[in-house]
Amino acid sequence: MGECLLLLHPSTGNALVESLQSCPATNPSMLNVHLVPHTHDDVGWLKTVDQYYYGDRNNIQHAGVQYILDSVIDQLQKDPARRFIYVETAFFYRWWKQQNQSTQRIVTQLVNEGRLEFINGGWCMSDEATTHYSAVIDQMTLGLRFLNDTFGECGRPRVAWHIDPFGHAREHASIFAQMGYDGFFFGRLDYQDKARRMKTKEMEMLWRASESLTPPLADLFTGVLPNGYNPPEGFCWDQSCDDAPIRDDPDLEDYNVDEIVQKFLNAGFYKANHIIMTMGSDFQYENANLWYKNMDKLIKYVNALQAKGSKVNVLYSTPSCYLQELNLANLTWPLKTDDFFPYADDAHDFWTGYFTSRPALKLYERLSNSRLQTCNQLEVLGGPKSKSGPFGEGDSDTMKRAMGVAQHHDAVSGTEKQHVAYDYARRLATGWAHCEVLVRNSLAILSGSEAPRVFCENLNISVCPLTESSHKFSMNVYNPLGRTVSWPVRLPVNGSVYSVTDANGRAVDSQVGNVFISLKCTCYIYDMKSSCLLPLLSVRWFHLMCVFVLFDNHRYNASAGNNKESPQTSGAYIFRPNSSDPFVINKTAETQIVTVSSTVQEVTQWFSPWVSQVVRLYEGHRELELEWTVGPVPVADGLGKEVITRLDTDIKSSDYFYTDSNGREVLERRKDYRPTWELKQTEPVAGNYYPINSRAYIKDDKHQLTVVTDRSQGASSLYNGSLEIMLHRRLLYDDYRGVGEPLSEPGDFSDGLVARGRLLLTFTPPDTAADVHRPLAQGMVLQPLLSFQDGTPSANTKLEVCRGSMDG
Amino acid sequence: MGECLLLLHPSTGNALVESLQSCPATNPSMLNVHLVPHTHDDVGWLKTVDQYYYGDRNNIQHAGVQYILDSVIDQLQKDPARRFIYVETAFFYRWWKQQNQSTQRIVTQLVNEGRLEFINGGWCMSDEATTHYSAVIDQMTLGLRFLNDTFGECGRPRVAWHIDPFGHAREHASIFAQMGYDGFFFGRLDYQDKARRMKTKEMEMLWRASESLTPPLADLFTGVLPNGYNPPEGFCWDQSCDDAPIRDDPDLEDYNVDEIVQKFLNAGFYKANHIIMTMGSDFQYENANLWYKNMDKLIKYVNALQAKGSKVNVLYSTPSCYLQELNLANLTWPLKTDDFFPYADDAHDFWTGYFTSRPALKLYERLSNSRLQTCNQLEVLGGPKSKSGPFGEGDSDTMKRAMGVAQHHDAVSGTEKQHVAYDYARRLATGWAHCEVLVRNSLAILSGSEAPRVFCENLNISVCPLTESSHKFSMNVYNPLGRTVSWPVRLPVNGSVYSVTDANGRAVDSQVGNVFISLKCTCYIYDMKSSCLLPLLSVRWFHLMCVFVLFDNHRYNASAGNNKESPQTSGAYIFRPNSSDPFVINKTAETQIVTVSSTVQEVTQWFSPWVSQVVRLYEGHRELELEWTVGPVPVADGLGKEVITRLDTDIKSSDYFYTDSNGREVLERRKDYRPTWELKQTEPVAGNYYPINSRAYIKDDKHQLTVVTDRSQGASSLYNGSLEIMLHRRLLYDDYRGVGEPLSEPGDFSDGLVARGRLLLTFTPPDTAADVHRPLAQGMVLQPLLSFQDGTPSANTKLEVCRGSMDG
Repeated sequence: MGECLLLLHPSTGNALVESLQSCPATNPSMLNVHLVPHTHDDVGWLKTVDQYYYGDRNNIQHAGVQYILDSVIDQLQKDPARRFIYVETAFFYRWWKQQNQSTQRIVTQLVNEGRLEFINGGWCMSDEATTHYSAVIDQMTLGLRFLNDTFGECGRPRVAWHIDPFGHAREHASIFAQMGYDGFFFGRLDYQDKARRMKTKEMEMLWRASESLTPPLADLFTGVLPNGYNPPEGFCWDQSCDDAPIRDDPDLEDYNVDEIVQKFLNAGFYKANHIIMTMGSDFQYENANLWYKNMDKLIKYVNALQAKGSKVNVLYSTPSCYLQELNLANLTWPLKTDDFFPYADDAHDFWTGYFTSRPALKLYERLSNSRLQTCNQLEVLGGPKSKSGPFGEGDSDTMKRAMGVAQHHDAVSGTEKQHVAYDYARRLATGWAHCEVLVRNSLAILSGSEAPRVFCENLNISVCPLTESSHKFSMNVYNPLGRTVSWPVRLPVNGSVYSVTDANGRAVDSQVGNVFISLKCTCYIYDMKSSCLLPLLSVRWFHLMCVFVLFDNHRYNASAGNNKESPQTSGAYIFRPNSSDPFVINKTAETQIVTVSSTVQEVTQWFSPWVSQVVRLYEGHRELELEWTVGPVPVADGLGKEVITRLDTDIKSSDYFYTDSNGREVLERRKDYRPTWELKQTEPVAGNYYPINSRAYIKDDKHQLTVVTDRSQGASSLYNGSLEIMLHRRLLYDDYRGVGEPLSEPGDFSDGLVARGRLLLTFTPPDTAADVHRPLAQGMVLQPLLSFQDGTPSANTKLEVCRGSMDG
Repeated sequence: MGECLLLLHPSTGNALVESLQSCPATNPSMLNVHLVPHTHDDVGWLKTVDQYYYGDRNNIQHAGVQYILDSVIDQLQKDPARRFIYVETAFFYRWWKQQNQSTQRIVTQLVNEGRLEFINGGWCMSDEATTHYSAVIDQMTLGLRFLNDTFGECGRPRVAWHIDPFGHAREHASIFAQMGYDGFFFGRLDYQDKARRMKTKEMEMLWRASESLTPPLADLFTGVLPNGYNPPEGFCWDQSCDDAPIRDDPDLEDYNVDEIVQKFLNAGFYKANHIIMTMGSDFQYENANLWYKNMDKLIKYVNALQAKGSKVNVLYSTPSCYLQELNLANLTWPLKTDDFFPYADDAHDFWTGYFTSRPALKLYERLSNSRLQTCNQLEVLGGPKSKSGPFGEGDSDTMKRAMGVAQHHDAVSGTEKQHVAYDYARRLATGWAHCEVLVRNSLAILSGSEAPRVFCENLNISVCPLTESSHKFSMNVYNPLGRTVSWPVRLPVNGSVYSVTDANGRAVDSQVGNVFISLKCTCYIYDMKSSCLLPLLSVRWFHLMCVFVLFDNHRYNASAGNNKESPQTSGAYIFRPNSSDPFVINKTAETQIVTVSSTVQEVTQWFSPWVSQVVRLYEGHRELELEWTVGPVPVADGLGKEVITRLDTDIKSSDYFYTDSNGREVLERRKDYRPTWELKQTEPVAGNYYPINSRAYIKDDKHQLTVVTDRSQGASSLYNGSLEIMLHRRLLYDDYRGVGEPLSEPGDFSDGLVARGRLLLTFTPPDTAADVHRPLAQGMVLQPLLSFQDGTPSANTKLEVCRGSMDG
């Protein structure tokens, strides 16, 4: 890497301040305007990631990333002053693979000279509200490892760049700080907060992004970009824009250089000695010539005025070079310790709907995360043969990349078009198919059994052809967690009498009962790795029932925008109920106690034909499980609906509640309040919603109710003692943020998607709550993988598995 | 030009057959598919020519020619196999001027190697229906001279390329043949004719384009392009298209190479050993990478099948290389001797409205042509000082370029948007302003008088401040024709008694009378270069009045498209009356004989408040002048209107009539008939309209009525002895051919444009008709230029001028 100019002292903690030799010269006596040419390339949104890459389906949206990179590399070569930053490694990786050696050499040179700079550098620009930190770290690793393998130290992104996500999580900032980024820029924050920061010059700050890590371990310089991530008005020269080009032929009737230069100088950004201007936007630079040709002219004509006394110096730059200048200025920054949720861009426009949008995709993404960890572990445990073994060729890369794009801020967020949501799910399924081969190979190696092995994907709807037809089968449970867990399993079977034994031939406590929908029998089996047969806490059951005065389901009717305050509708992004009071779906749920046995106690509640809930308490478990089923949400009455479950307790929580950040640390929330600025609350429900990725809780001195979720959701506490979680949404209108479709998932029968999920409730003293909810949440994230073999397996070797032999 | 590969034998008449060394190799045993990458760049249509060049106003239409040329030159350098043709020199000239030497060298190299080939090469791609041959030759000269000066022989276009004009004039083909083009390709011809030619394989032909020139002087190979000028369906890879790109990553879910290749092979063009495919369209190649990247893949994958027995060979080519292959094949072609008017693209869709659309622009263009000739002549006569003399810096280049773009097929044709029509007019005015300085300088030199000189631009509406206020003034008449003419002049004055004398102080016969609108006095003066005082033919006046049973005005009401046969409306392009019978505007015109004197006899007819006509016979002139005034055309009744003047005579013309081609040779027309194919007539009026540029006539054995026009118009003969000419059109609907505006010119007061014009009628025996109408038409095209000086001029030197001294 002798040619690498970027880093002279890569080993020091503060390399940026040391030197970025390749940064452009600035003029300390002038206002330096850093033009940052960039493109924002969603790895899926209105089109699938493939369609975006190739420029397919341009009738939906004109965008073709292959051409963007072609064009930028061409244009960078035309003038060494020109710079570009690239962000999404999912796209860059694919493009790089298709280039010949000569182009790869040119690109490497551009990277080494700092003319092409990678920024952020993850596989995607992850969503911050609905992602789990483990998947975020994975997707960042995937991108950064590629950049490091390909370009070495010069390819290392120095700056995190989340210009589009709709609110910002503290855990993300913490991760970026711990990954060694020098700074973080983003575009979107609450409009009230932004107005205040503009006024008080607090657009740039130091984010102390962890309460538990010792500063400065999680400290990160953070800047809010002045214009979102767009160019200033009138200066968008992309092919997708209609702004006037610079017409500098003096013979011309409509010569406009003077006018453009004056407009630029009047743009009113005279706040500091340096200002950053994002020159680009969504999928721009497909024809980079348009941008660079006009920016070349802008730089030429604006800087030409310096000879006449102008104090403005315009230059091509990058976020890291801009940041270097800020660091050199040796200023102090205000401190930020909370986060940037929820995000509102106007009084009635809170982006809190997407915390819950597409609940099935959100679950599938979370489940896939668990599977990917299993796949990764078994790839190591099984050795090289796991990738090429008795069941064929398998890999974990496909799943890694599928998970990488699924973290995108229009993927797991649920804010993509329907066909794109299907594409993400398909990618995850394909990823798992590749992993499945690997897992089969690995389990064959580990167990010594090459007998066919099936993974029953549809256990959540009580379907598994093998267990339903076989008279004798065995089950393997692979537990990806680093410690033992107990895990309830329900299998659909056809007979009514089964004997279940563990790996050592010992009988396992199990029960065959009626599954209320299918009337099929269900057999409960427990993982043998832990001592799962804890005493049944039937006492606690009734105790809980007393505390939870209500845990029934409500719905908000969605605003159709025909409201006098604002035309804003509820949509994929935005939550806006048409009233602050939710409708109780049914005051008296029809309740049926299905099972009271030694392994499980189960109460089924029917609130309506499309909302039901099973309340379960498992033997040996301290949590209460609420299995909710919502859908198809009826909309024939012309009203979109957003279904919540509300837990009303006598906990004296006042206005406070607590939500996690990306499944890791927890932040305190307070109704109608923001920690660092004075909120004018304009949406009493939507404006109090926060994302939860793994849990939320309310507490008082004595009690804490914690809810652990199986996926990301939106949650709030609007009343003393109350905690509500949004489960599902079906809407009739688009919410004008670009997706252009109402969020109305059709489901299998085109009458609306049925979503099902689980909430785990624990009721503990506050001091010991974490001892319970942490392992619960971990168990939700990393679930055991079940696999089944017909008949008696040939051998049981290295793997500790739970095996049941059954005779119908 | 040692590097020039294009022409080994530029001096031989048939250079193409000799050798185009740079053409790509073809495979004689296969079907060779010549991909011709091209862009069609209107020099004004929906946007002005400047807006198109710079890519301004992209909200109207995305198009920026500067970027097209940037991008194509970049992409051609990436692979020597790639080729491109460029057509419109107005744009290329401007782009070339803005390039640095290095780029100019690269371009020259590409031209020398035949990778960039100029085709057509005029300043614009001229309209064929509404242009005068002299202006066409000028605009071709302007473009070709630039190419020759810049690139020499290698820059010479070998092929004429009129892919878009809406019908094709024989005179254009004749001009192209005489200019040395090897062939001519176009895109649009009557849909019935095209269907027949497809069936009989007569899409390619030999056009014998003159009845008077000895073959092969005006013979031209002419080919109709298979797909207009567009790519085959599904193969449009421009940024403006939505066709699927070739996705050739084998890992890809939506890999589509096999599908695309098969679709291409099935395209069904297996007719000959060579086929041309136009790969481009309007303003395409702004990001040429998209096109070339996908065509590279198409060529690679289609030709790869040759190894498996495919007989299709795809290659980058140009029209001249394709033509070379056709010539080498030594085939014989069917003969074409008439022209390709009128053009219809469906049964009720005759593009005959634009023959008349925007009559004021059409007149101004014609007048500007005359002025440009005057300017050119005075530039030579006045010597170098004419461009830099007592009145400042003048030039003829601005006017040449303005006239060059005005010849475009969406300029003088009247088929542009209103703001673009204004732009053309403004350019012509600016051109004249530059010329005016030159003319002032030149006249000062020639006359020896540097006294201020004014050109009264508004004499057509009887406005000239100098003549109206001055007690004594002189007038210069510059006659650009090569022979003497007599020319009636009317000047607005304020007094009632004037004396008029010629250059030698002799009294000139003149008369001061009432101008019926302004009530101003008008003085008639004659050019002294000819013996203009011929005896007044008052006898002929009454004779004519007897023959012309009717010359009154009619109107067609425009179809609003609510007709059961077709939704086609009348619009800027299309003429479609809602009935075949025109409405008589008024059966009995209010008639007033204004003047009967020795210099002029004048009858004014009022047909309605918005249609009037002055009939004049001048002393010394054999023709009858009809000065028509039409407008503001009322449309409050919800009907667009197309106003004609119809001359009904007792000439036994049967179904025959005659119209000129671009102001030169004359073609015979026959109602409901086409010479070379059997017409199914579906529009009895519009389907019989033909363009006239300078004249039309009907005749029998004894008599011929010839009408000489002052601008291009549409004309027809629908009845025995009748000749009709469309004067003005005002419409309420767009006609769905892209312009997106109804043709409804607002005029000065936004109530509709008033148009005024002249028709000169002669009534002669057929044998001697040309002796009269030819000089008349020439006089219309090259009009004398009048200029005025206050007081008595200081001297009269070289120029023979007519000067009148007046005392009020």
